[in-house]
Amino acid sequence: MTAYHDLIAFQRETEALALVAGRLGWDQETMMPRGAAHQRAEEIGALETALHRRRTDPRVGEWLAALEGEALDDVARAQVRHIRRGHERATRLPDTLSAELARVTSRAQGIWAEARAADDVAHFMPTLREVVRLKREEAAALAQGGDPYDALLDDYEPGATGAGLAAMFDRMRPRLVELRERVMGAQRAPAPLMGRFETEGQMGLAREIASHFGYDWRHGRLDRSVHPFTSGSGTDVRITTRVDESDPLNCLYSTLHEVGHGTYEQGIDPAYLLTPLGNGVSMGVHESQSRIYENQLGRSRAFCGWLFGRMGEVFGLAGAADAEAFYASVNRVHSGYIRTEADEVHYNLHIMLRFDLERELIAGLLEADDLEEAWNTRFEADFGVAVDKPSNGVLQDVHWSVGLFGYFPTYSLGNVYAGCLHTALRAAVPTLEDDLARGHAESATAWLRETVQRHGGLYQPAELIERACGFAPHEGPLLDYLDTKFGALYGV
Amino acid sequence: MTAYHDLIAFQRETEALALVAGRLGWDQETMMPRGAAHQRAEEIGALETALHRRRTDPRVGEWLAALEGEALDDVARAQVRHIRRGHERATRLPDTLSAELARVTSRAQGIWAEARAADDVAHFMPTLREVVRLKREEAAALAQGGDPYDALLDDYEPGATGAGLAAMFDRMRPRLVELRERVMGAQRAPAPLMGRFETEGQMGLAREIASHFGYDWRHGRLDRSVHPFTSGSGTDVRITTRVDESDPLNCLYSTLHEVGHGTYEQGIDPAYLLTPLGNGVSMGVHESQSRIYENQLGRSRAFCGWLFGRMGEVFGLAGAADAEAFYASVNRVHSGYIRTEADEVHYNLHIMLRFDLERELIAGLLEADDLEEAWNTRFEADFGVAVDKPSNGVLQDVHWSVGLFGYFPTYSLGNVYAGCLHTALRAAVPTLEDDLARGHAESATAWLRETVQRHGGLYQPAELIERACGFAPHEGPLLDYLDTKFGALYGV
Repeated sequence: MTAYHDLIAFQRETEALALVAGRLGWDQETMMPRGAAHQRAEEIGALETALHRRRTDPRVGEWLAALEGEALDDVARAQVRHIRRGHERATRLPDTLSAELARVTSRAQGIWAEARAADDVAHFMPTLREVVRLKREEAAALAQGGDPYDALLDDYEPGATGAGLAAMFDRMRPRLVELRERVMGAQRAPAPLMGRFETEGQMGLAREIASHFGYDWRHGRLDRSVHPFTSGSGTDVRITTRVDESDPLNCLYSTLHEVGHGTYEQGIDPAYLLTPLGNGVSMGVHESQSRIYENQLGRSRAFCGWLFGRMGEVFGLAGAADAEAFYASVNRVHSGYIRTEADEVHYNLHIMLRFDLERELIAGLLEADDLEEAWNTRFEADFGVAVDKPSNGVLQDVHWSVGLFGYFPTYSLGNVYAGCLHTALRAAVPTLEDDLARGHAESATAWLRETVQRHGGLYQPAELIERACGFAPHEGPLLDYLDTKFGALYGV
Repeated sequence: MTAYHDLIAFQRETEALALVAGRLGWDQETMMPRGAAHQRAEEIGALETALHRRRTDPRVGEWLAALEGEALDDVARAQVRHIRRGHERATRLPDTLSAELARVTSRAQGIWAEARAADDVAHFMPTLREVVRLKREEAAALAQGGDPYDALLDDYEPGATGAGLAAMFDRMRPRLVELRERVMGAQRAPAPLMGRFETEGQMGLAREIASHFGYDWRHGRLDRSVHPFTSGSGTDVRITTRVDESDPLNCLYSTLHEVGHGTYEQGIDPAYLLTPLGNGVSMGVHESQSRIYENQLGRSRAFCGWLFGRMGEVFGLAGAADAEAFYASVNRVHSGYIRTEADEVHYNLHIMLRFDLERELIAGLLEADDLEEAWNTRFEADFGVAVDKPSNGVLQDVHWSVGLFGYFPTYSLGNVYAGCLHTALRAAVPTLEDDLARGHAESATAWLRETVQRHGGLYQPAELIERACGFAPHEGPLLDYLDTKFGALYGV
């Protein structure tokens, strides 16, 4: 067992350095002076080089080889599984390819931002072609004869496959399109909130609801950033939100979303600190936590009732006539081009579109030059509206410019997992409805911590959700929840 | 020249990682959630291990050897001098000694804090004995037959020697003791400021004067911390201050002090970014910048006149009857035990006491067990007051607990350098008095940037000051300035 001991000791330092790299990312988005970007890129580059050297260190390969066939307990086996996966991914990529990917994608993000601002797809096209070419190369190198898209997906969602997700999405899509059409054809049309809600009040209320959902301030903090995000793990997990004085829901529900990510990381068994098990196990499971806090709990009728009253106290107005109108506003279904602004009914349709297109791109069935047309055709079919400009269509998301192929489907998988967990949670915690009506969800966090969060990376994602719910995860609970909730809200 | 190119490329990554380590330190004092300390220690430990490995990397020794006797330009020669110095210091220490020092001093800080809080020297004594023993060992290893104290000093002030400093202090001490007695015997006794000054106004005014002294917000920021400090170099140099609502001078002059450190780092030639020349050259030169901003400029009659008016506008009161009374309060000379609260007349007496004692400790002429008595005897001789309790005496400073022997004298050296620079600055910038009377000191910063700051680590400290002033640095200008200023203020 010396090999295991040495491997874990080595890995602890790697994990610590990875946390430092994450902290630099947080600093960049929240605190960094604006003239420091160039220097910061060098700092991050030096740290990433050091991390890459550690991940591909031949000693890791030797320790892993020495552990082949050793009898290990569950925790040790899971630790080794994570380390082996990371080491294999890192060593399968030629150094030249890693370097070229890093160089191209770091430049691509700026070009994508310019193209989006100018609604100019052609400006981005040469870069996108290059990114797609490199990602195909990377996928082939990682797949070693297996499915290339699956090899990319595996980085975000171990155990998931493109074929499995495609089958699930094929089952989901008709029901979502049908629900969307039903709701959009309804007579009712809830109004957005009206009024001005000053920044200090929004941030104060954001902190209050974060506390009510079990976010631990001893191990976290809340700041503002352009795009909300969660950073860190273990005993230092920071979240951000943004403030729009005409739309307090943006701040509050962004906060609840990040509180979901944050409590997950905070809730992992402290024994796993600074080991591979000390992080959320996958993007899909992470998103299940953020979405259940934001949607199934935060946008519930019970919690909205409390929030309506509390906003009246904080701001002197809640922006809606009564609690029922407030609840309808919070859950307003509206046509829109932008994924990040989508309601619960539309959201997964956005993802499926991206999933199908990126899978074809990586498989070589679609070329970058044909992407815009494919996007626009599919969007009109699923959303009933024609895309008016590229910034509302193919150029809207940063993901592909930075090489994140295989990431999008984990958002929907998170929603599906959230649907399953919500069913099990409601059965397990009968007092939850009353808690939410008092503006509290610590009881939900306690159940999620026990069943999901504390395990960190111990189980594979689907196994983890099955253990938590008592049934294998599937799309049914999410679709039933959406049908019931929005059918009632819109009387359809 | 391949060796030089490779050495500098390697060093750039080391410098970048060192900046990251510094940023973690900043985060710890300003932003870190309070429950993250243990994890942070592991993060810093991993980064320091990586840095130590780079500093002792055998390739650095090989590159340096290959460069022996090569013809290098001034900049390259200075770069190599810094790298060689760092490499030699790192390789001369046995790994076991470095590790033991790190372990003992990190624990010692906590024990010192307990001892100070309880006024219990005995509680700290076993640890202090251990620290002194290890520092003597370190000094001997570094000195390689030379003077052990000089070897420690060299880490903070290259080129300075204990003997040289002792001679200078011996010339300074009688004049300072005499001035102190004269002032303390005067009839005049200015009052401290009276009133409450709310936090937001203090921070706003702190930002305003930082701007007026040339601090560059594009490459910096101001936050609050328990102890004010400056962190970073190049394009990301952050400063902190603290706020006491009954004493606005604490916040404002702490800010000006850190603005001095900060503008120094910000003012270094951008061509030196991420190289050894891209940092302030020594603690003494650093302190010269902080002290000239804080004292010679910030506590001048002209600037105090402006500040009196501005405080009236910001707070509705300035805490003194008129500008003259305000100026006297800002420069109030008062008996006190604590170095960090000392006025300009007392400050260097505090340093000399520490310098003499720590030099004897390292030389083996004084033992840790006899330190308290030596401190108390000396304090009464120089300050005319008996120490009432250890927290006001030998336990007041953190430095020795964390092994910072050789650091104290650089504070006084900074004051001496500030005195020299101030003389040259006044001669070079005749408009400065008018600028200060308008609350501005950008003209001083421009001169300091040109003569001192931009050079970074290019020249040795004393050489740098001599080039800036046109004369070799000595204590005369500082002592003359103090005599004139406080003689006039106290009519003695």
